[in-house]
Amino acid sequence: MRHGKDVKANFAAAKEKIFEAARLGAQIVSLSELFSSLYFCQSEEEKNFGLAETIPGPSTQTLCEWAKELGIVLVASLYEEAEGGRFNTAVVMDADGKFAGKYRKVHIPDDPEHFYGERYYFADGDLGFPVFKTRFGTIGVQICWDQWYPEGARMMAAQGAQIIFYPTAIGFQIKGDKSLNQAEHEAWQIIQRSHAIANNVFVAACNRVGVEENLNFWGTSFVADPLGRFVAKASVEKEEILLADCDLRLIDEVRRDWPFLACRKTTVIAK
Amino acid sequence: MRHGKDVKANFAAAKEKIFEAARLGAQIVSLSELFSSLYFCQSEEEKNFGLAETIPGPSTQTLCEWAKELGIVLVASLYEEAEGGRFNTAVVMDADGKFAGKYRKVHIPDDPEHFYGERYYFADGDLGFPVFKTRFGTIGVQICWDQWYPEGARMMAAQGAQIIFYPTAIGFQIKGDKSLNQAEHEAWQIIQRSHAIANNVFVAACNRVGVEENLNFWGTSFVADPLGRFVAKASVEKEEILLADCDLRLIDEVRRDWPFLACRKTTVIAK
Repeated sequence: MRHGKDVKANFAAAKEKIFEAARLGAQIVSLSELFSSLYFCQSEEEKNFGLAETIPGPSTQTLCEWAKELGIVLVASLYEEAEGGRFNTAVVMDADGKFAGKYRKVHIPDDPEHFYGERYYFADGDLGFPVFKTRFGTIGVQICWDQWYPEGARMMAAQGAQIIFYPTAIGFQIKGDKSLNQAEHEAWQIIQRSHAIANNVFVAACNRVGVEENLNFWGTSFVADPLGRFVAKASVEKEEILLADCDLRLIDEVRRDWPFLACRKTTVIAK
Repeated sequence: MRHGKDVKANFAAAKEKIFEAARLGAQIVSLSELFSSLYFCQSEEEKNFGLAETIPGPSTQTLCEWAKELGIVLVASLYEEAEGGRFNTAVVMDADGKFAGKYRKVHIPDDPEHFYGERYYFADGDLGFPVFKTRFGTIGVQICWDQWYPEGARMMAAQGAQIIFYPTAIGFQIKGDKSLNQAEHEAWQIIQRSHAIANNVFVAACNRVGVEENLNFWGTSFVADPLGRFVAKASVEKEEILLADCDLRLIDEVRRDWPFLACRKTTVIAK
């Protein structure tokens, strides 16, 4: 999706897409990172703290209502206001409309020079790497910069995650070097496909599109299967409902030949 | 390289290639996994225990002599006989001809049905994930099945490895499903490129070619840079000296934009 400045308009657009996705048969729907606003982390401005909200709160209540009405699982990303600080938080709504839980982004990019000044807005996630047992599968969520880290996917897979979602806001630097932009775009796909391979899980990356100030978000939302193959892949520029059929039985099938997770000799510890 | 049954002939062929690579300007040369023999792990036979040797020992002495004569670093893979058991071991010779050390393969595939019956031959590596400071860079070695595990590369990079070598013997199952073979061939490249990306290091995969019984080794030796881009890539079938120019300054350059390693929030612990 493309997202704008008006929070209400972003919610209305998200509702339309989610309902359309459900009509097309989607059972789990993910939105991109911080879908209710522009990607405000390009600059460091105090007024943007006002976008933060409690979780659960009014936004998750709305999302829970949609999930219940449609009988689908919803994955979304919001700016969380909490006692301990503000967080970049993913939320999961189960298909019965219950709030299933949240994950707070662990890896926070601190790169205002390249328009990812997230340190100013978000504290380090402090909830570890939870997974959520939903009606349509056990899922985990990692958020944008987390995607460069194999540790998060590993820990979620070790707890039974079958699909790991990556709500994201990443793009080409408009004034950046073209070949570097292309290398980053390809690396972004490789690293997430590698998490699917290393853990034999499905991976679903959901990125925004459109130009916002200094970033041209590169879309390319995709779903990879437990062998790292693309199941579905979206365009760079267009808003799309990307439907992917994920047969979760493939996970065990692949693990019979590739028992990578079971045969780990190293211990990966969170927190 | 293609390898045969005759150990002496394999050494002679390796010598010829190593000397040719040095003549072409190579500073660090890697051979593929278990280069002195056929890939004997396709079947489980006691007589193959006879291929094991002490390390250091006569083979490493020969390799050290070559390294000294050429002034190059050598990376090789041998079957090690030790007090504690037999190991699948990588050895590093520094450019002054000194034996720099060894790594014992940690992740041992136990899949005789698909012709990787290594459990019969090798105990789990017990030396952790060492790195070696050589004349031409700090390097680490991971062996074949290790390549599916992000943990090893992570721990080596965290200790300063600039190039991680992956001596390998992997191939298409001759009687296997074609599309599965292709998916595995692609996944093998993706997962190793992902280690380059996650750690911003160079990765050098060195695989054998040729048909041996039930496996058609898929070659495709390659070097990837700290952005995961191919620097050089060999063919599927031909023996080749694959030369790759690795500017180690690129590591720090990429890490200024992508400080993934420095910004880890999770602790990865070996053993």
